[in-house]
Amino acid sequence: MDHQSRDPQFESRVRASFARQRFMATLGATLERVAPGKVAIAFSHRDDLTQQHGFLHAGVMTSVLDSACGYAALSVMEPGTGVLSVELKVNMLAPATGTRFVATGRVVRAGRTLVVCTGEVTADPDGDAVAVMLMQATMMAVRGRAGVAD
Amino acid sequence: MDHQSRDPQFESRVRASFARQRFMATLGATLERVAPGKVAIAFSHRDDLTQQHGFLHAGVMTSVLDSACGYAALSVMEPGTGVLSVELKVNMLAPATGTRFVATGRVVRAGRTLVVCTGEVTADPDGDAVAVMLMQATMMAVRGRAGVAD
Amino acid sequence: MDHQSRDPQFESRVRASFARQRFMATLGATLERVAPGKVAIAFSHRDDLTQQHGFLHAGVMTSVLDSACGYAALSVMEPGTGVLSVELKVNMLAPATGTRFVATGRVVRAGRTLVVCTGEVTADPDGDAVAVMLMQATMMAVRGRAGVAD
Amino acid sequence: MDHQSRDPQFESRVRASFARQRFMATLGATLERVAPGKVAIAFSHRDDLTQQHGFLHAGVMTSVLDSACGYAALSVMEPGTGVLSVELKVNMLAPATGTRFVATGRVVRAGRTLVVCTGEVTADPDGDAVAVMLMQATMMAVRGRAGVAD
Repeated sequence: MDHQSRDPQFESRVRASFARQRFMATLGATLERVAPGKVAIAFSHRDDLTQQHGFLHAGVMTSVLDSACGYAALSVMEPGTGVLSVELKVNMLAPATGTRFVATGRVVRAGRTLVVCTGEVTADPDGDAVAVMLMQATMMAVRGRAGVAD
Repeated sequence: MDHQSRDPQFESRVRASFARQRFMATLGATLERVAPGKVAIAFSHRDDLTQQHGFLHAGVMTSVLDSACGYAALSVMEPGTGVLSVELKVNMLAPATGTRFVATGRVVRAGRTLVVCTGEVTADPDGDAVAVMLMQATMMAVRGRAGVAD
Repeated sequence: MDHQSRDPQFESRVRASFARQRFMATLGATLERVAPGKVAIAFSHRDDLTQQHGFLHAGVMTSVLDSACGYAALSVMEPGTGVLSVELKVNMLAPATGTRFVATGRVVRAGRTLVVCTGEVTADPDGDAVAVMLMQATMMAVRGRAGVAD
Repeated sequence: MDHQSRDPQFESRVRASFARQRFMATLGATLERVAPGKVAIAFSHRDDLTQQHGFLHAGVMTSVLDSACGYAALSVMEPGTGVLSVELKVNMLAPATGTRFVATGRVVRAGRTLVVCTGEVTADPDGDAVAVMLMQATMMAVRGRAGVAD
């Protein structure tokens, strides 16, 4: 689905907010593409991000995908609105083998308050491109709450 | 619900597996209690784990809660079985303010292959004890797959 | 968790709204208990509600549990507010054998706009009392929208 | 994603199983298209399927979508395998106004035991074609259990 942004500065607003998400820096995640209603974030395998079998922890992928969906939602909100995650659900599709990953979030339906998104994590996007996680989530537009902007 | 372990060594098995989850060390999470079908993991606010408004990133809480539910499931599986997350769903209940957090995972129903769990993250468990996240998840027992034990 | 109603007439309001849910009558579901933040609805096995193996269709249980959670949420909303389901997630815990079922919905966290609920369906509640379905859901308070009250 | 069926008789197997789902007949739902990994089921507004505001009850849509996803999963399973719903999650995207609806289920990832599906309900598919519900679900292949085939 195509979406329009209500803010000509949506990309710089998303990039500035992402830069404040210190947990994304901790994970080594970088913001790749920002389009109205669609955001992609890249990250890589690192040994300090693994679970007990040596795969990336599902929580790492969920965290980056949550940010991708959140910023896809923010990209279609008007200036001055903050975004918060209401709820999210993920299915693991395959073991997270691979060295490089991309999490892509997309707006499915943008209401005034709630925005429904879907997203997926793809392993080795420039090679085999295996989908390893699928998300369906609800984001919320927050207005007029101190400390919650963008 | 009360659950019984099929493995007298369940606690040492869970503790050894948790120690191999390098992402939990990266998050500063520590394994607190291990009972049959119930596991609690503690963690703390850190500036490098935050989202754009300065709260703990929802992904941090989801990650620790995923591990808590996964190990609650493993605690009731027979020796030699590995555990993997199939899917999980979380609702954010309140902003993750506070300095110390506990994620608790519980087995609701243990089948031979699939184990359904619920869990929650509580902020400041020794003070106000505010529930900030709720999870419902499915874990899977994996048998005979190379590299996937415990 | 204990909840307080903001409306002394909450029970009659819930009962009147339930009586307008014609799908509940189609399923033969009856409203049993209404307390602030907690609602129970009973229903029974009927051959015209089954799936291909002769069990109750998961959709029947999900439908009644959705109503139970929705009315648990409505019971703590102020007069004049309508309730709508935002999203719901269920896990099947066991095959829906049995003749009589009770779906119970509970409010976990009531915000001004969003209300998080959990619920379960129990088979043969006066006998073996087997939990067969578990729900985690988000309900929304709707104000000032034509046609959406209670 | 394209999927292949492991059973040349997949369509007749799905149609025969659907015909045994008596709840689908109760809802007036009819099986439209059956392709490997993709199934569409049609249904219509009826006053006896409504919630308190006169819209189709979310449970009606969830029920049909659950069947659509379940049969999409069955269509890629080998002969003799039964399908059961493990868990499902839906988001409501818009009020279910309209007279005719189509629920479409698709296989995203088919493992040997678990099959991950997505689906949506579209209102007035031959007119405005508004998406009103989105599902992400897990189906399970059951082998060798008495009474659970197809």
